[in-house]
Amino acid sequence: MAETISLPRGFRFGGTSCGLKRSGAPDLGLIVAEAPVSVAAAFTTNRVQAAPVVVCKEHLARSHGRARAIVINSGNANCCTGRAGLAAARNTARTVAERLGCRNEQVLVCSTGVIGVPLAVEKILTGLPALLPDLGSGPEAFARLARAILTTDTRPKTASETVRIGGHAVRIAGCTKGAGMIAPQMHTRTATTLAFVMTDAGISAALLRRALAEAVGPTFNSITVDGDTSTNDTLVVLASGASGARVRNARSKDFSTFTRALERVCRSLAMQIVADGEGAKHLIEIEVRGAPDDRSAARVARTIADSPLVKTALAGADPNWGRILAAAGRAGVAFNPEKAAIVLAGVPVFRRGRPLPFDEKTTHERMSAPRYTMRVDLRSGSGRARMWTCELSEGYVRINADYRT
Amino acid sequence: MAETISLPRGFRFGGTSCGLKRSGAPDLGLIVAEAPVSVAAAFTTNRVQAAPVVVCKEHLARSHGRARAIVINSGNANCCTGRAGLAAARNTARTVAERLGCRNEQVLVCSTGVIGVPLAVEKILTGLPALLPDLGSGPEAFARLARAILTTDTRPKTASETVRIGGHAVRIAGCTKGAGMIAPQMHTRTATTLAFVMTDAGISAALLRRALAEAVGPTFNSITVDGDTSTNDTLVVLASGASGARVRNARSKDFSTFTRALERVCRSLAMQIVADGEGAKHLIEIEVRGAPDDRSAARVARTIADSPLVKTALAGADPNWGRILAAAGRAGVAFNPEKAAIVLAGVPVFRRGRPLPFDEKTTHERMSAPRYTMRVDLRSGSGRARMWTCELSEGYVRINADYRT
Repeated sequence: MAETISLPRGFRFGGTSCGLKRSGAPDLGLIVAEAPVSVAAAFTTNRVQAAPVVVCKEHLARSHGRARAIVINSGNANCCTGRAGLAAARNTARTVAERLGCRNEQVLVCSTGVIGVPLAVEKILTGLPALLPDLGSGPEAFARLARAILTTDTRPKTASETVRIGGHAVRIAGCTKGAGMIAPQMHTRTATTLAFVMTDAGISAALLRRALAEAVGPTFNSITVDGDTSTNDTLVVLASGASGARVRNARSKDFSTFTRALERVCRSLAMQIVADGEGAKHLIEIEVRGAPDDRSAARVARTIADSPLVKTALAGADPNWGRILAAAGRAGVAFNPEKAAIVLAGVPVFRRGRPLPFDEKTTHERMSAPRYTMRVDLRSGSGRARMWTCELSEGYVRINADYRT
Repeated sequence: MAETISLPRGFRFGGTSCGLKRSGAPDLGLIVAEAPVSVAAAFTTNRVQAAPVVVCKEHLARSHGRARAIVINSGNANCCTGRAGLAAARNTARTVAERLGCRNEQVLVCSTGVIGVPLAVEKILTGLPALLPDLGSGPEAFARLARAILTTDTRPKTASETVRIGGHAVRIAGCTKGAGMIAPQMHTRTATTLAFVMTDAGISAALLRRALAEAVGPTFNSITVDGDTSTNDTLVVLASGASGARVRNARSKDFSTFTRALERVCRSLAMQIVADGEGAKHLIEIEVRGAPDDRSAARVARTIADSPLVKTALAGADPNWGRILAAAGRAGVAFNPEKAAIVLAGVPVFRRGRPLPFDEKTTHERMSAPRYTMRVDLRSGSGRARMWTCELSEGYVRINADYRT
C-alpha cells in the first residue's frame, strides 16, 4: 500500500498520538497544502450532524472553494457535544490557521469515534504544534496519516492512481477509515467513513465538486457494512495543481480522464472499508440487473446488502438463495419472481422462479472466498445497480455489544 | 398459557407430527370450525409469495367470506416451489374439504419453514386422516395446535380474552409462531409470522376484516426481530358466532369492544414473538413521540428498531444513546436534534441535544431486564408511534449462519 503509492505534489501529511485514545494508538492526523488549493467535499445526510461536520460546512461556505489544511482526530466523534463541541472544532481550525498563516475557513476539521463524550480538545491543541514541523510529503508521512484516522479498522486503507492529462502525470491518492456504522450516503446518506483524496491536477473547485459528485455515487455511496449511516461521514478532495496539468471544462476528455481516475481511487478505498468491515472476512459484490430502472435496482441491491438474514447466510457461506429472493421481494420494487434468476459466486442457483440443482459443497467453497459476486437478475426491465457488502458475523456482534468504555 | 386460556365455542383444534421435520417434532396443525364461519385475513406484502399465500388469496376471493378449516404445516415454507408447490397447497385443501364435506375454497393452507425445498405433500396427506378424528375443543387440543406451527421458536405462543357483548360472554383466542424473518407488514409488509385467532363472536366477514385491519397495524405490523419480511406471513381470524353475541355495525360500542379485545390478543401474541426472537433475551418497547406526524414517528421507531448498532448495544445492555440518535437521524424525518430527548429504561440519558449525567451501572442493570421501554421524544410535532424489538445477539447470528440442512 503505502510503499507503492504515488503521492501528488503540493501536500504534506502527518499523524501522531495526542492521547485521545487510551491505547496510545495514533489519533491525530494532518494534511497541509503548500498553498490554498481547490476543495470539494461531501458530508453525511444524517439529521444528526457532528460538530466538525457543521464547522466544515460553515468554512466551505465562506472559503470560495479554497482550503489549506484538514485536521482529523480519531477516538472521539465530537457529536452531540453541544456548544462546547462546536467551540472545540473551531478552536482546532483556528490553531492550525494561525500556525499556517491562513484564514480559519481554509482549515477543515474531521472527527471519528464515540458519540456524546466531550472532546478533550486541549489534547489536540497540545499535539498540533509538535505535529506541524513533523509533516512530510513521502509515503512514510502518508502512512502516519492513514494510521491516525483509524478506529475499529484492523488496517490502514490507501489507494492511488496516476493518469496523464495534457502531457503531465497527474497523481490522485487517498486514504480512508471505517469498519462499522458504514452505509455512506454522502449527499444522500452516510456512515463514519472519513476519506481524504489529494491530487496534483489543476482544477477549479466547481469542477472538482462535479467530479466528486460523479465519483461518490457508485463508490462510497454503494457500500454498506451495517446500514447504519453515521453522523460524521466526510469525504474531502483537495487539488493542488502542482502537476502542471489543468482540467478546464466538464465536457473535456481531460475531465472524464480525471473523474474516472478519481472514481477508481474512491472505489478502491470504499471496497477496502467493506473488506475490513467489523467482524468480516468476505467482500461480496451484489449486482442487480433487470429492474424497472436503475433506482429500483439500487433499492433491491441495498435491501439485499442490509438484510440480516442474507448477511448471516453469507457468514455461514450458505447458498441460501431463498433469503436473497425474500429480501428482493420486500424492497418495494415491482418484479415477477417467476422470471428472476440468481447466480451465487458463479453458480446458478435459481432461474425462472425455480431452484436449480447445484453442488452445495462447491458453492459453499466458492462462498468461503474473501471476495465473490452475487448476481440477481429480475428480468423485469433494464435497470442496474451494484453494491458491496460483507457478512454479519458473531464477531460484528461481539465488537458492538461490548460495553462502551 | 394453555392451562388458563378461554377458548371460543364452535372450533376444534389439533396438531401432530407428519414427518416434515427430521426431528420428529410436531409439524402439522389443523383448525376446524363446526360450520362455515366468517373469515378475515392479512398476508405478507413481499413480492415473493409462497404457494399457500397464493392459494389462500384465491380461496378467499371465492369463499364469500366463509371458511371451515385452516391446515398449517411447519418445516417447509412451500415457497419458490413452482407449479408443484401450488398443486401441493391445493391438494392439501382439497383433501380436508372432502373429509369435511365443504368447498375447497373454505379451506385455507399455511406453511412455514425453509424456502425453495419441494414440499413432501404426501406426508401431509397421510397425516391428515389421522389428525381429523383426533381434534378437540379444549386447552390440550389447542396446545397441540400451538406446538405444531413452531419453527425456530423456543416456546408456543397463545393469548385469549373474554369480553361481554350484548349480555353474552365472547371469547377470542389465538396462537402464533415466529422467531426470525420477523418484520410483519401485513397488507404493507410481513415476516414468517403465522397467527390464527378464533372467536365465538357473531360478526360478518366485512366487519371482521375491518376489525382486523384496525388491530394488525399497532400489533403485528409494529414488531420486528430482524427487519426481514417473510414470503409466508399470514394472520387469519375466524368468527363462529357460537357465543350468541352479534356485532352489527362498525360504529357500535360492540364493534369497538370487540376490536379492542382482538387488538389485545394480537398484541400479546406479537410481543410473545419478539420476546422469543432468535437469540433474544430482551423485549424492548420503542416509543417515539414529538415527530412531525404519526407516519414519521413510525419511520423513526422502525429505523431504531432495525438498526444493527442499536440492537447490538441492546444485546450488551449498553445505554449507548448516540447510536439511537444516529439511527433516528438517518430515518429521513425532519427534526431538530438540539431539542431531542431520550429516556432508556426509565433513565433520562439525553435532553435538548445534550448528554445527561446518569448512573451507568444502574442503567445497565435496568437494561438487563427481560422487558423495558426506550422513549425518544423529537419535540418537533405531535406524531407518535410504538414498535417492539429485541436485541441482535451472537445467538441470532449462530442460529442463522448455521448451514441449512
